[in-house]
Amino acid sequence: MSLKPYIYVLTIAYDGTNYSGWQRQPHLTSIQEVIEKAIQTITREKVPLIGSSRTDAGVHALDQVAHFRTSKEIDTGRLFKALNGLLPPDIRILQIKTGTQDFHAQKNAQAKIYHYHITTKPFVMPSERLYTTHTRKEIDLALLEKAAKKFVGTHDFTSFANKASEGAASKNAVRTIFRIDVVTTKHGFRLEFEGSGFLYKMVRNIVGMLLEVASHKRPFEEIDSLFKAKNRRLAPTAAPAQGLFLVKVVY
Amino acid sequence: MSLKPYIYVLTIAYDGTNYSGWQRQPHLTSIQEVIEKAIQTITREKVPLIGSSRTDAGVHALDQVAHFRTSKEIDTGRLFKALNGLLPPDIRILQIKTGTQDFHAQKNAQAKIYHYHITTKPFVMPSERLYTTHTRKEIDLALLEKAAKKFVGTHDFTSFANKASEGAASKNAVRTIFRIDVVTTKHGFRLEFEGSGFLYKMVRNIVGMLLEVASHKRPFEEIDSLFKAKNRRLAPTAAPAQGLFLVKVVY
Repeated sequence: MSLKPYIYVLTIAYDGTNYSGWQRQPHLTSIQEVIEKAIQTITREKVPLIGSSRTDAGVHALDQVAHFRTSKEIDTGRLFKALNGLLPPDIRILQIKTGTQDFHAQKNAQAKIYHYHITTKPFVMPSERLYTTHTRKEIDLALLEKAAKKFVGTHDFTSFANKASEGAASKNAVRTIFRIDVVTTKHGFRLEFEGSGFLYKMVRNIVGMLLEVASHKRPFEEIDSLFKAKNRRLAPTAAPAQGLFLVKVVY
Repeated sequence: MSLKPYIYVLTIAYDGTNYSGWQRQPHLTSIQEVIEKAIQTITREKVPLIGSSRTDAGVHALDQVAHFRTSKEIDTGRLFKALNGLLPPDIRILQIKTGTQDFHAQKNAQAKIYHYHITTKPFVMPSERLYTTHTRKEIDLALLEKAAKKFVGTHDFTSFANKASEGAASKNAVRTIFRIDVVTTKHGFRLEFEGSGFLYKMVRNIVGMLLEVASHKRPFEEIDSLFKAKNRRLAPTAAPAQGLFLVKVVY
């Protein structure tokens, strides 16, 4: 029997603006570390909190899922109140459940949904300034939808993935995207990505390419040639972090 | 003929979080002053910017209207770009038009619409933390609507108005509220106020009273007795600034 038999599964929302991203890093304030410290204050036990996705600096989450193991049984209602009491208002625990012994927030994730928000108006409303990316490009929405379809399905995404610090991403860059939907909004549009999993900066890199193609800065045919080239350097830079939200993790 | 014959009318949105309010004040950063300085940089002329409403510290606006007079004719398209280029992202100019000689943003306003956002869920979503007020009170929505109706119409609002620094509010506290609607939202509800004009802190003071009555902390009948008492001290404290938005000014 495990020394830490109790598993708690957290659903978490956060504003990534003031953090170095999800993952713990020396000398930087990560979302993972801030929540781990709050858990430690409550349980008096230092345990790792495993998230489904390592969202990057400035990326937000509406529904991140994470789990931790502990040797102590804790009432989930009490834990919910205590954690939200300790955490800053830009990190909120939405729900806490007990997990089964085989639950793993990262390994058991079947699909993830990300939304990327883009404002095409001449200005960004002040209350949205941290949650959308402003483009001055003239976007052809029909061309955007056509280009988005090219990314759906199973591909080698090497040209659209940055190497993660641990270098794991470069080994196998084949991933499956189930859908990319273009949804018009009050001030522009959002791109909805659903896929089995995403490589480091993959969503933002695809958005960067889509905006280039949909504004006639790069030819539509270059999407295919970039897939074949498997060379990150040939593709456009990533779209900014602030427009990106982790919206849902499916188990 | 006036020395400053050109009148420009600005529609402005702002996040009030980091400001001392609309109105210029010594030693504090006001929205009025920040925009006046940007106008001065462009026109090389120091002129006052007259706003329709003196929103309080922390109060937001989606559609504040303000005007200024200048001796120089400026292309509105150029002024729009130059102002938004100079202003911080939490203040945005949405539109600029030339005004007629008799236009006055404050005196000509026929009606104003304010929205007050309240979250009743156990948590406030991080991206909404600056734009809603969290209540842990158990709100009876039917009672809330019934109480809100008591404030509609023409009343002496002395019990629901703080004295403004210039003391003007105390002279005549009779105002007309056209409607107060309760609209349920994803995480709670918002109160929509439309009226001919509002006294200093009047919306927030009414919201404070409505939350007390709708959570059975104060009897419904106290609304009438407070109108009669004309005594601010007998009424509850104002609801926090962050939930309040100036949504529309009607001319």
